[in-house]
Amino acid sequence: MPDIDIPEVVAEVRKAFEDYEKALVNNEVDKLDELFRDDARTIRYGAGEILYGYAEIKAFRAARSPVGLGRTLARTVITTYGRDFATASTLYERPSAPGKIGRQMQTWVRFPEGWRVVAAHVSLIDAPKN
Amino acid sequence: MPDIDIPEVVAEVRKAFEDYEKALVNNEVDKLDELFRDDARTIRYGAGEILYGYAEIKAFRAARSPVGLGRTLARTVITTYGRDFATASTLYERPSAPGKIGRQMQTWVRFPEGWRVVAAHVSLIDAPKN
Repeated sequence: MPDIDIPEVVAEVRKAFEDYEKALVNNEVDKLDELFRDDARTIRYGAGEILYGYAEIKAFRAARSPVGLGRTLARTVITTYGRDFATASTLYERPSAPGKIGRQMQTWVRFPEGWRVVAAHVSLIDAPKN
Repeated sequence: MPDIDIPEVVAEVRKAFEDYEKALVNNEVDKLDELFRDDARTIRYGAGEILYGYAEIKAFRAARSPVGLGRTLARTVITTYGRDFATASTLYERPSAPGKIGRQMQTWVRFPEGWRVVAAHVSLIDAPKN
C-alpha cells in the first residue's frame, strides 16, 4: 500500500500546483505546456473542449483568449500516493462567470523532468442558490 | 520513472473499470460503494454535485434514482503508471440526455483490498453540432 501524504511529497506537488495556477491566470502558455506531460496519452477535458493527447492540449492553449482568466480557488485538496503520484482537486469561481462553480481535478505523476499533469478535467456547474 | 502501461496492470485496471461501469448502469450501489476508496480524502465531482469524502459519495449513491442510467462509452483510455496507479478517461452518451456528451475521469490506486477510485470527475457538455 502506498504511503499517503508524505509531507515532503505533498509540498512538492503543492508547489507544482501553485506554479500551474499562477501560469493559468496569467496565461503563461509556455509554462502551462511545460506542466502537462508531453505524451499522446495525456488527456484534458476542459470546460467546453475534449482534448486527447499533448498536441491537442498545446493547440488549445495557444489559441485561448487571455481575457478573464482570473479566479479564486476554494476547497483545494492535494493527496499524494507514494512518492510519484498525486491528485489535486479544487473548486473555483471567476468574476467572468458569475453564478457558476468551476471544478478542476488533475492527476500528477513524477517523471525525471519533474511533476507533470497526465490527466485533467475542468467543468462548470450552476452555483447552488441560497 | 514509473513503467507505463505494464500489460498485466492495465488488464487489472480495465477489469475494475468494467466492473464499475456494469455496477453504474445497473445501479448496484453496494458495488459502487466498494469500488470507491473509503477515506475522507476521496473526492467525486459529479454531473451536478460536489462530494468531498466517502460519506458524501455513499449518501449520493443511496439517494440516486436508478432510472435512465444506461449509457454508451466512447474513446476510453486507461493508462497505468507503475503497478499501483492509473487513470481512466471516457466519454459517454445517454439516451436520457440527448445532445449532451458526458466526460468521466477517474484516478485509481491499488490498495491491499484491491483497486479503488480515489478521485473522480463527471461532467456534461453540449455535443458538437455537425
